[in-house]
Formats: sequence, C-alpha cells, structure tokens
Amino acid sequence: MPVPSPETVDAVLRHADARLDQSREALFELLSIPSISAQEAHREDCARAAAWVHDRLVALGFRTEIRPTAGHSVVLGHFDGPAGYKGPHVLVYGHYDVQPPDPLDLWTSPPFEPQLVDGPRGKRFVARGAVDDKGQTTMFLEALRAWHEVGGGIPAKLTVLIEGEEEVGSRNLEPFLKANKAELTSDIALISDTNMWDIDTPALTTSLRGMTYVQLTVKAAKRDLHSGLYGGSALNPINVITRVLGDLQDENGRIQLPGFYDKVKSITNARRAQWDSLGFSEAAFLGDIGLSIPVGERGYSALERLWARPTADINGIWGGYTGQGAKTVIAAEASAKITFRLVPGQDPDEVVEQFKQFVADRLPAGATAEFEGGHGSPGVDVNADSPWVRAAQAALAEEYGKPAMLIGCGGSIPVVVSLKNVLGIDTLLMGFGLDDDQIHSPNEKFEQRCFHHGIRSHVRLLAKFAAG
Amino acid sequence: MPVPSPETVDAVLRHADARLDQSREALFELLSIPSISAQEAHREDCARAAAWVHDRLVALGFRTEIRPTAGHSVVLGHFDGPAGYKGPHVLVYGHYDVQPPDPLDLWTSPPFEPQLVDGPRGKRFVARGAVDDKGQTTMFLEALRAWHEVGGGIPAKLTVLIEGEEEVGSRNLEPFLKANKAELTSDIALISDTNMWDIDTPALTTSLRGMTYVQLTVKAAKRDLHSGLYGGSALNPINVITRVLGDLQDENGRIQLPGFYDKVKSITNARRAQWDSLGFSEAAFLGDIGLSIPVGERGYSALERLWARPTADINGIWGGYTGQGAKTVIAAEASAKITFRLVPGQDPDEVVEQFKQFVADRLPAGATAEFEGGHGSPGVDVNADSPWVRAAQAALAEEYGKPAMLIGCGGSIPVVVSLKNVLGIDTLLMGFGLDDDQIHSPNEKFEQRCFHHGIRSHVRLLAKFAAG
Repeated sequence: MPVPSPETVDAVLRHADARLDQSREALFELLSIPSISAQEAHREDCARAAAWVHDRLVALGFRTEIRPTAGHSVVLGHFDGPAGYKGPHVLVYGHYDVQPPDPLDLWTSPPFEPQLVDGPRGKRFVARGAVDDKGQTTMFLEALRAWHEVGGGIPAKLTVLIEGEEEVGSRNLEPFLKANKAELTSDIALISDTNMWDIDTPALTTSLRGMTYVQLTVKAAKRDLHSGLYGGSALNPINVITRVLGDLQDENGRIQLPGFYDKVKSITNARRAQWDSLGFSEAAFLGDIGLSIPVGERGYSALERLWARPTADINGIWGGYTGQGAKTVIAAEASAKITFRLVPGQDPDEVVEQFKQFVADRLPAGATAEFEGGHGSPGVDVNADSPWVRAAQAALAEEYGKPAMLIGCGGSIPVVVSLKNVLGIDTLLMGFGLDDDQIHSPNEKFEQRCFHHGIRSHVRLLAKFAAG
Repeated sequence: MPVPSPETVDAVLRHADARLDQSREALFELLSIPSISAQEAHREDCARAAAWVHDRLVALGFRTEIRPTAGHSVVLGHFDGPAGYKGPHVLVYGHYDVQPPDPLDLWTSPPFEPQLVDGPRGKRFVARGAVDDKGQTTMFLEALRAWHEVGGGIPAKLTVLIEGEEEVGSRNLEPFLKANKAELTSDIALISDTNMWDIDTPALTTSLRGMTYVQLTVKAAKRDLHSGLYGGSALNPINVITRVLGDLQDENGRIQLPGFYDKVKSITNARRAQWDSLGFSEAAFLGDIGLSIPVGERGYSALERLWARPTADINGIWGGYTGQGAKTVIAAEASAKITFRLVPGQDPDEVVEQFKQFVADRLPAGATAEFEGGHGSPGVDVNADSPWVRAAQAALAEEYGKPAMLIGCGGSIPVVVSLKNVLGIDTLLMGFGLDDDQIHSPNEKFEQRCFHHGIRSHVRLLAKFAAG
C-alpha cells in the first residue's frame, strides 16, 4: 500500500522541522556558487551548480545525469516511486542559474556569500538566487530528503529537471524537451518559481505573462566626435535613441508599436471578478518600493495591468561617456535593452517585428539601427480546474489553515509554454516567494518562514500525489 | 635694439627646422603622461604633467612656479623680454590636461603611448592630447626654445599660464585670475587650441561658442525591480529619461527649453557674408566621419549651425543593466550628461535653469530629477580689427604664402571669457589643428606638418610682437 498514512506524513513533517538548519545549510552551499548564466565568465560556476544538484539527487536515489545542451547543462533525475504507485508521474522543474547581481554597490553583503539575518518577519536568507530559484528548488529537494530519510521513502514517481538557462530565456530547453520527449513523458509538471499572496496566505498561479527581449543599437558617425566641433551638423545617436524610445508609450500608457494590441486576449469576466475579490492594494504594493503613483495603461485595474496587460520596459541603456566628470563627446552609437511582457494571444516573434517597424518609422535619415536577441515566449493561462490543482489546494490548506488564492503573475516562465507545447502537460505553479523578495535586484532575500512552509507544503503535496 | 632682423628670424627658423625631431620627442614625453583631469585616479599624473611644463619653462629662463588651485595646479612663468622691449606683454595660455581616452577598445595604439605613424599627409602623432592641447602648447614652447638657443634670446615679454582643468570646465581658473590679477596684467592673450582652415590654409578664430554641461539623474523606486512582477504598475526611470530627453529638439531641430532662444544674438550680415565666402562643404565635412545628412536647425547655413547657433547634445546616458545578455530589470534610476553649446547673448546659468524647467515640465508624478554640474561659459566674439590680429595675419601669411582665414569655432574655450572679464584683454586664437584630428575621440592625432609650421609661425609671431 503505497499511500502514506497521516501519521507517516506527520513524522516526515517533524523530521523536516528538526533538520531545518541542515536544509538551510544545503541551500547556502548552492547560493555560494555564482552561476550567472548570462555571463561567459561564469560558465564554470554554472557547471559547478549543476554538479551540486546532480549530487543531491544521486543521494536521494535518483538515476541522475548532467545532460549537455548547446548552452548550460540540464540536470535530469528519475525516481520510479514505490511499487504499486497509482498517482501521477510528476515532472519537477527548477533552475540553478541566477541573474547577474549588478549593481554590486547596492548590496549590503556580497551576493554570493549568503547571509542569515534577522528581519521583521523572522530569519531571512540574503543572496542572489535566495528565492529565484535556488531557494525554491532546494525546498523541493529538502522535502524529498525528508521523505527519503523517514516515512518509508519518497512516495511518488518523479522526474526532476533542473536547467541552467532560465535567466537568459531558456533557449536550449525546448530543443532538449523535444530531443528527449519519450524519456520526459509525464502527467503534470510542478514548478516553484512564483509567489505567495502574502506571507500567511498561500497561492497557486494560474496565469503568466510571456516576454520578448530585444537589444537596439543606433549608430551614426563612424567615430566619436567633439560636440563643439560637430554639434549642429552631426547626428547624435543618443539624442536619436531617446527620441525613438521616448515614444514607446503615449500619455495613456498605450504602447505605440504598430499592431501591438491586435491579438491581445482580454481576460474573462469571471477571472476579473475573482481578481477583484483578492482585495489587492496597489498603494501598499507601490509603497513598499517607495512609489505612490501607478503607471501603465489607463482604464485597467492594477492586477489586470500587472498580470494580463502587456508592457514595454527599457531594462538598460548606455552610450557615450558615462564616467566621472565631463566629456563633451558626440558618441558613435547608443544601445538599449527592452523587454516586452506579453499576454495570451500575442506572438513574441511578431512583437519583435513590430518593434523593428516602430524604430524604422522613427529613425532619422543617416542613422542605422541594429537588433539583437528577440527570442521569447507567449503568455499562458493554466487550467485551474484540474485534480492536481485541487491536490495542491488541499496540501496548502492543510499547511496554512486557509485556502490558497488563485492568482496571476506578471513574470514569465517560458518553460510552462514549452512543457505544454512539447510534452502536452499542464503545470502546477506552487511558489513561496513574496513580492518584496527583491528578485533580480540587489539584496534578494527569502524568508526562512516561507522556505520552511515550502518544504512542508511539498512534503504534503507528495503525499497527495501518492494518494492518486 | 630689441627688434630681430629678418636674418635673425631666418636663423631661428632654420634652427627650429633642424631640431624638429627633438621637438617631437619633447612632445612625446608630455603625451606619455595620462593627465586626465576628469578622473581622480589621475591626480598624480596631472601633477607630473604640470612639473614637466614647469621644468621646460625654467630651462628657457622663465621665473616659473607651480601654483596650487582648489583643483589641479596652474603652471605660471614670467619672462621680461629684452631690455628696451617696446611690444606688447603677451599672456600665453595652454592646458596640460586631456580628455578621458574612452572608449579604449577603439584605439589602434594605447592612448598614452604616443606613436609616430605615416599618414596620407606625411608623419602624424597619435595619442590622447596629441593636438588638444599638449601638441599646440608644445609648439609654442619649442618656438621659445628656438629663440632661446639662437637669435639672441626670446624677443618678447611673456607670461605663460598652463592650466590643468580645461577639459573639466576650468572651474578654478577664473578665481586664480582674480587672485593674481596684478601679476597677470598684460596686453593681449595668445592661445593655440583651435584649428586651421585646412592643412595648407592658416586661420585665426574670431568667434567661439560657449557651453554649459549638466548631468541629470531620474529616480523612481527605491530599488531595482523585476520587470515582470512590477511592469505595468511601477514607473521606469529609463523610459522616463528617454521620454524627457527625446523631446530636447523638435522636428526642425529647434531646442525646446523655455526661453532658450530669447537672448541669442544673430551674427552680422558682414560676418555671414564672410563665412559664406569660405566655400565650406558640409558634405565633405560629414563625409569624413561617415555621415551624409546634416542635423541642426532648419534654415541656417552649415557654418552658422556649427559656429553661431546653440546646440543640445547628450554626451552620455546610462541606467539599468548594460552587461552581456539579458536582465529583465526596472532600474531605480537613470542618468545622462548633456552639453548645451551657447552663443553670444545666452547666459549659461539661465540655460541651466531653463533645462531644469524643461525637465520639470515633462517629469511624470512619482519621478524625481537631480542635477549636477551646470558651470559654463558664454559664447564670445573676438575683435578681429586689432593690431595683434594683424600681426598674426602677417606672421601666418609669411609662413604659408597665403592669407589666414578669419573663422568661427563651435567649441568652447572658456578662458577667453575669463581673460576678458577679469584681465580686460582680448585673445588671439591662432591654432594649427585640423577638423579630422579626432580630438576627444579615439586615435586623436596631430599632423607633423601642422606641428612644424606651428612652431615656425610662433617663431615669426614673436618677432612681430618684438617689432611692436
């Protein structure tokens, strides 16, 4: 009889509680590895992080391999589950890579020297990747370890896939899924890379925005020029790039790419009503980050703007002299990185073409534009009416003593689209991050309370899966 | 009888010719010192450059001191001239500081390892400062040396003032002039920091644009944000700064600062006619730098746009993630450096206030703007009808066998304004640079032919001064 009893679940939970310090120490080992997938200099660190995950899975009895891709490797582990297992085969996805830590000077401690500090809500972990996604990935591994060490072993059939390119667009993941489709056949995917509603209220995420990322470089003269000797005659590419990109939105926050909204799907009235019922306070949300006045499209609620409307944000801009003091130069070129967050209906490739047209429409004669990047993924809606969503709702309700919220997420997890497209499976998005975790920012943190409840929730969810 | 004979002048010129290699070697010593005044790390190098100039002047018999300022030091040397000297007391100004060499990767040789290379017009010197202003300053020092070594000694009464903050706005020079006004009393100033008409045609510059330099920082949230989780609600300061600065000029190239043109003085019809007669080819001017289509205000000739109309050029911009790959961040702040080139009538301080108003008028609620810099100098017209201009015209005509052009310059030499305001003297601008010398750019160069003729022209000019 492979279905664990309530007493067994309690024993596993007690064991997870007792070894919380060791779980945190395991996470800190992983956080100490600067596995920045965007930076070639950290290639070896990415390989070290993959090896760390590999070794953990091997210790849990998984048949595990580090599988190469055209970029950073995928760690893939299989566990058959107990004899007579009747539940779903679950594909667990996570990523061991992290965002660059810049700007470094805003960190209060080195980003790859994880710190345990006291915060207003108890202990917290501070490091790049603390929550995204090393912290959330480690929660699941630690839930597995609790089952491995007590309770008769891991109670479910699992495939664990931990990749190393999520922060650079997962460009080699879909080819990997396609190439290994038979091996990856499963019933449902499980990902912890999203947020709770608040620290006391669990959530399941049922919609995600997509995104596409483009780098634009505007060029003019063949060399840098003296702004006194050439100003008034020579084209200035920084003036040009500000003029072009300054036109991305109109006064009402509407994005000006031609055709940008043509295929945007509106959310259903039912979903809008459900989101309205969440009681989200945009004032509090913005207040936490020092802002008070919302931007975005006029005429939409805050959650609709954050979860179901597309955006155009310039993520970086550079050109000319940016050092100390003055240098009166007209630069030869200027560049910017731009993200478009997309919603269901929008095609990432079409949006890139729209952006190129938008630039071409505004580029003055004599300037040239070059584009890089442009890979992306569409927005997704997750089916909220499935037995696995109900299983996760039950696990979270037991853990927190209150029902989980069904929420959207403005971020992008392209793998959800790939898993659906290639393997035909839905994804359960059960995350334990908080809005103020500062992911992708200096001083990223993860509340120990979230980490702890996250381990426990996964312990419970594995039992729900085993129950079939 | 202190007036040198034509035979004496010829002897000095022959001596200068014979020791051209040593003159170049002297310049290369100075060019090897990275005296970048904008960068604190090069403070000691600036002091080394000052010491080098000091030692040269001492060797020429000048009473010389390195005089401290609130920033980099001024080198000040006095020479009384021969007994019975009847000519003007000439204040010679130059600067030993240079612009930062960035972007370094575009240099074909290290910027502070001067190279003697073959170019299409003979030998040339390649280094940061090759012409601006170490090359032009050294020309004068070498003319002095030729007189010092033959011809009976330096024939004029001179004060030589070589400062170290020209490339950062000469902010301590005017206080220095005021504090040492009695010591600096003189009849006329002489500066070599401008260009010839072309390599075979000498020029005297009789108008200069002024400038003011402002750094703008736009701030929004108190930390960097994830563009997925906050995009659609949180203000993006890079989007804001592009929107604000993209509005600097309208479609006709008119600068949009309120009141910006109110006090602009038009040039006289006589000057316009004289400039039109120069036969300037904007197509060739732009063709040299890989451009073909002029920008700037519609309705003005090229030389008027370059010499007598104000500009607004963004010299640098930065914010967010500018490294390799992707980072989907909404930055907490974005910055830009902007130069306004000014013409007679415009007040630099008023323009800074106009810019602040321009930004305030466009800044969305929730964003803040901070400003740095803002010191500047007005544009100037030099009196072209003076005995010293005529003396310089005669010296140049003898050297080149053709008359010198009277031209304007779009760049700024703020000291000209200070010399007029504090000491009450006009400035003779006799320069030997060329438009393609790439000053302030990678691979700055100085043609040896210009350097050589520059030394010889100064030898001749000193004789003209001595003639009274």
